[in-house]
Amino acid sequence: MKYNFDEIIDRRNTNAMSLNGYRNYLFGGSDAFESDYSDEDLIPMWIADMEFKSPPAVSKAVKDRAEHGIFGYSQIFDPNYKQAFLNWSKLHYDWEFKPNHLVTSHGVIPALFSLVKYVCAPDEKVLIMTPSYAFFKLATEGSNRELITSDLINENGNYTIDFEDFRRKAEDEKVTLTIFCNPHNPTGRVWSDDELRQLGEICLENDVMIISDEIHCDLLRTEKTFTPLARLFPESDQIITCMAPSKTFNMAGFMIANIIIPNDELRTLWQQKEIPIDNPLSIAAAQAVYSHGNEWLSELKEYLDGNFEFLKDYLSEYLPKAIFKIPDATYLAWVNIGAYLPDEENLTLFFANKAGVLLEGDNMFVANGAGHIRLNLACPRARLHKGLDRIAKAIRNSTT
Amino acid sequence: MKYNFDEIIDRRNTNAMSLNGYRNYLFGGSDAFESDYSDEDLIPMWIADMEFKSPPAVSKAVKDRAEHGIFGYSQIFDPNYKQAFLNWSKLHYDWEFKPNHLVTSHGVIPALFSLVKYVCAPDEKVLIMTPSYAFFKLATEGSNRELITSDLINENGNYTIDFEDFRRKAEDEKVTLTIFCNPHNPTGRVWSDDELRQLGEICLENDVMIISDEIHCDLLRTEKTFTPLARLFPESDQIITCMAPSKTFNMAGFMIANIIIPNDELRTLWQQKEIPIDNPLSIAAAQAVYSHGNEWLSELKEYLDGNFEFLKDYLSEYLPKAIFKIPDATYLAWVNIGAYLPDEENLTLFFANKAGVLLEGDNMFVANGAGHIRLNLACPRARLHKGLDRIAKAIRNSTT
Repeated sequence: MKYNFDEIIDRRNTNAMSLNGYRNYLFGGSDAFESDYSDEDLIPMWIADMEFKSPPAVSKAVKDRAEHGIFGYSQIFDPNYKQAFLNWSKLHYDWEFKPNHLVTSHGVIPALFSLVKYVCAPDEKVLIMTPSYAFFKLATEGSNRELITSDLINENGNYTIDFEDFRRKAEDEKVTLTIFCNPHNPTGRVWSDDELRQLGEICLENDVMIISDEIHCDLLRTEKTFTPLARLFPESDQIITCMAPSKTFNMAGFMIANIIIPNDELRTLWQQKEIPIDNPLSIAAAQAVYSHGNEWLSELKEYLDGNFEFLKDYLSEYLPKAIFKIPDATYLAWVNIGAYLPDEENLTLFFANKAGVLLEGDNMFVANGAGHIRLNLACPRARLHKGLDRIAKAIRNSTT
Repeated sequence: MKYNFDEIIDRRNTNAMSLNGYRNYLFGGSDAFESDYSDEDLIPMWIADMEFKSPPAVSKAVKDRAEHGIFGYSQIFDPNYKQAFLNWSKLHYDWEFKPNHLVTSHGVIPALFSLVKYVCAPDEKVLIMTPSYAFFKLATEGSNRELITSDLINENGNYTIDFEDFRRKAEDEKVTLTIFCNPHNPTGRVWSDDELRQLGEICLENDVMIISDEIHCDLLRTEKTFTPLARLFPESDQIITCMAPSKTFNMAGFMIANIIIPNDELRTLWQQKEIPIDNPLSIAAAQAVYSHGNEWLSELKEYLDGNFEFLKDYLSEYLPKAIFKIPDATYLAWVNIGAYLPDEENLTLFFANKAGVLLEGDNMFVANGAGHIRLNLACPRARLHKGLDRIAKAIRNSTT
């Protein structure tokens, strides 16, 4: 490999949420967090960023732009940015969208907060599938809209959509928006074209607009491919697609995301309401990775494949009652360890306290995740190994 | 001088609003903009950023942080950031605030949008002084709160607060917030301690919370000093102070601002509602300028003093009927040219079309600015000269 994903990189003193933001995010400042391990010795496997360096194109682009020396109010005017992302989309998803449908946001999360308000009247409802990334709920309830959930069907770690349940809920005329996740966080499912068609048809028939959060779409297992939902409904303007370089290239801190809004009225509202400013360094970095990040991404995917194989083997050997399926995408493993800790109510807290591993238990995923933990595998294999040893030991200690 | 503010820097292809964002901001996409000058030949003197390079500490900090290579979710955890800004505040404004009162925002504008919602119930009103920075109105009306304006008193270019009028309006029990601007944009007034005390007392007596936008507070004429409003009311928790490195060091594109919220309840609400993410490069750059930007700022201020003298002399010689007073602060000149163009309704458009100079006429400042233009003087003197020649010529052509 050209890139060394085994390198252990010290993130102390870099203002990283991963190392410094867990108390508030995972434990809400609760004093129930009291780990057997020192702060310095905690292993972060929670927040969805990576312990790997971004592609060299990022540092280079940042430094080149920094050299210019003027950093005033900026916005994407250079057509090469859009072209770079269009090329990426064509190459990776065989999808072409109209360049004027693309707007940017400081992240998918802020985009969700805005879009829920723009799409739904105050008495309308948002439908999501559970388990779910917590911010789908937060963006809905933070906007004082009612949340409706539809549980995914889980058969031994294989997740599918409960279309009957979803349809019934979509038929509620107050449900006017669904926030859909593909690849799905936390299960890692990449929905098939058939599933996407069914889902899209149910929504369109019931006048339910769709936000398709596709932020993990580049982080596929090597043999997988990805279909943006909007590609299957080229005539519809009811599907908003959210993508970003943040997960793919480990640049969430750059706060730049691509939001494709085909509906003219909604896009105009967005343009009127949003403050149209982006960081010039972020624009430069994002343009650079869409132009030059492909080889790095290929190697990253191989390394992540290896980490998932490692986890699978580890669980088979040391925690055979765990239920785990290598996900189609993401660097997140969704592992059912309920067989070992059936009475543990807060798995996040349990593993932080007993294993010194910061991970996200099912309590972080709205509903329908009992007994599960989400592990971030985007780290050097040696650290993954150490984290798993700690997790297995904590489970052994508590079950014997 | 150690720094060369005369250098003409090409901002093309840097995604600069200044060069590329004027059509939308100044003319709302209207086709009334049809300049006698080509796009390439327009002189931007509108948006409040500078044609000067940031201090070298910015590029250095950005490059150093870029070298680390990981740019995941970030927030200010390093206590050195707060300490650097506290030191700056003590040195420049003789003001000390409690470190835990400091939060960050992606800019003063987004902070205003949030704070108006957090402070005012939907039926409450926001009081501002006019002429006013347009975003005070936009943040108020964008949140569906009613705007109340109090005209400043203008005596031959000397602006003062109409305390009688302001008090009468603050007494309206539905007025629960004022957005105050110090140094004032566009007039450039630095309010005296006496004025600040009067203003603060009226607001506190009437339970009107104050957002004091002090973003221009470092950009003083060399002989001036600055008093943060909150320094005069150390016992009150009703004054929110907004400061930022963005104007001072020409880094608005870095989207980082310091918001000091002494009120515990409001700050808690802020922390619950805002997405607490900052760009790690922006944090590094801001910390660097608060630590190492002082010498550069001193030279910048001298250069700006010179530009204001140049403008004053130029107007005396070529446009003697213009009313202009060198402002206490900012790099913005607020010039009354009404004597020359009494019938011109849209001065922004007039000078864009006839002079090829992009500036902001009184139509951009809510009210009480008739006949005025705001010129951004943060540019090399040669360009200022050229812009003024164009402005004077356009006036001559239209009045003879």
